[in-house]
Amino acid sequence: MKNKLSVVKIGGNVIEDENALDTFLTAFSKIEGLKILVHGGGKLATQLATKLGIESNMVDGRRITDAETVDVITMVYGGLANKKIVAQLQAKNINAIGLSGADGNSIQAHKRPVKEIDYGFVGDIEGVNPELISNLLSINLTPIFCALSHDGAGQLLNTNADTIASEIAIGMASTYETTLYYCFEKKGVLMDVADDNSVVKHINTATYQKLLSDNIIADGMLPKLHNCFHALNNTVSKVCLGDVTMLDKNTELFTTIKL
Amino acid sequence: MKNKLSVVKIGGNVIEDENALDTFLTAFSKIEGLKILVHGGGKLATQLATKLGIESNMVDGRRITDAETVDVITMVYGGLANKKIVAQLQAKNINAIGLSGADGNSIQAHKRPVKEIDYGFVGDIEGVNPELISNLLSINLTPIFCALSHDGAGQLLNTNADTIASEIAIGMASTYETTLYYCFEKKGVLMDVADDNSVVKHINTATYQKLLSDNIIADGMLPKLHNCFHALNNTVSKVCLGDVTMLDKNTELFTTIKL
Repeated sequence: MKNKLSVVKIGGNVIEDENALDTFLTAFSKIEGLKILVHGGGKLATQLATKLGIESNMVDGRRITDAETVDVITMVYGGLANKKIVAQLQAKNINAIGLSGADGNSIQAHKRPVKEIDYGFVGDIEGVNPELISNLLSINLTPIFCALSHDGAGQLLNTNADTIASEIAIGMASTYETTLYYCFEKKGVLMDVADDNSVVKHINTATYQKLLSDNIIADGMLPKLHNCFHALNNTVSKVCLGDVTMLDKNTELFTTIKL
Repeated sequence: MKNKLSVVKIGGNVIEDENALDTFLTAFSKIEGLKILVHGGGKLATQLATKLGIESNMVDGRRITDAETVDVITMVYGGLANKKIVAQLQAKNINAIGLSGADGNSIQAHKRPVKEIDYGFVGDIEGVNPELISNLLSINLTPIFCALSHDGAGQLLNTNADTIASEIAIGMASTYETTLYYCFEKKGVLMDVADDNSVVKHINTATYQKLLSDNIIADGMLPKLHNCFHALNNTVSKVCLGDVTMLDKNTELFTTIKL
């Protein structure tokens, strides 16, 4: 039997709010078995960029990352957010270790090729390093990944945290029975975006197609659900979407996705 | 026979200068055997603080670290400097992993007690975690420490990088034959500060006392040499002081200190 592994991706809204972050980290610390956290930095990067007089350019919700901006993201994601999370988890008796994709060569990527839009220093993931991650888990460490990969030639790359989470889950799924959790501000996939309790509790391949054709899954949920099925199609056991109460197991109101 | 371990502390002047940093990292990457790097962030933290309108207060060359300043230091030391060094070492085929003292609970400290001066969030080291560091070395990783420790209760603490280097060397010395290298802008301890080539090649306990009484060792060199002898008195084999050419072994012009 494979050991269980939970890969949890935390939303930007939680990172920005000290109380919400503490609640989340308490819930995360109580997850039984092996676990990995993946985070971005939410609006903190935009706030720092603004203070430094660096313009934040977003196209379709994605940040155009010039040289100054990748430095800001490295400071905020890799420094402030990552180290605070690690220090706070240590206080909760979790032996956390913070990582960018450059650390231990854990996430290899290449700079996104320029087509219509030049996204700048944005990474498209080539692969994760499951051996390194397994080694860290085996010496009782809990890896905390920020949303940075590297190109192997010395360049850090801003990388979508949802994608990092699904690629890590896929990389680990041959060794561990892996569940991927997307923890965000909603209780799951909603039938009616105006009704927070209208959670679709179970989704499979067939119902996913129906939800797509009925336009229930739209906008920002489209790439998220795409990541979920990409993970499931690559031997990840299960994907769950919901808010922090999903981790506490104090609720059944969250979305579980299986093939 | 114990394995050899080199603990190298890099000066702030090198971090600030891209070309000097690349030269240093090339030399560091060529050191044979197990190795650890320790760095601060030099003037980069002051530069960022200034841009953000945060005043930098220094007393006797030490930074008063209020809550805003510890965030700046976390961004610069733990984020920008650490992750750039790690990414650049990966490009030189060194499997580097960046760490603050919170990561893996590697450096435990307490906030310096307030006496005449309140230094703020500055850490006095209680101990390093040699088991964690040995575990990382054993899976072929090269630890890169930034100048941050933690108090175990969720607080990161600004910590002198020279002291971190000597405490790490001491912590590892029972397991490894450990040499501590202080790599800075000078070629070593100088008989005449105005003559860069007047290097004192060898210092021991007796000649150290003579250099002190003759005021050859003064100012910023006093705490550095204190750290050197603290390390030697705690089973570190050897301490070397010099510029980057010391690491290349292309020069004999550096200072070697033994008891």
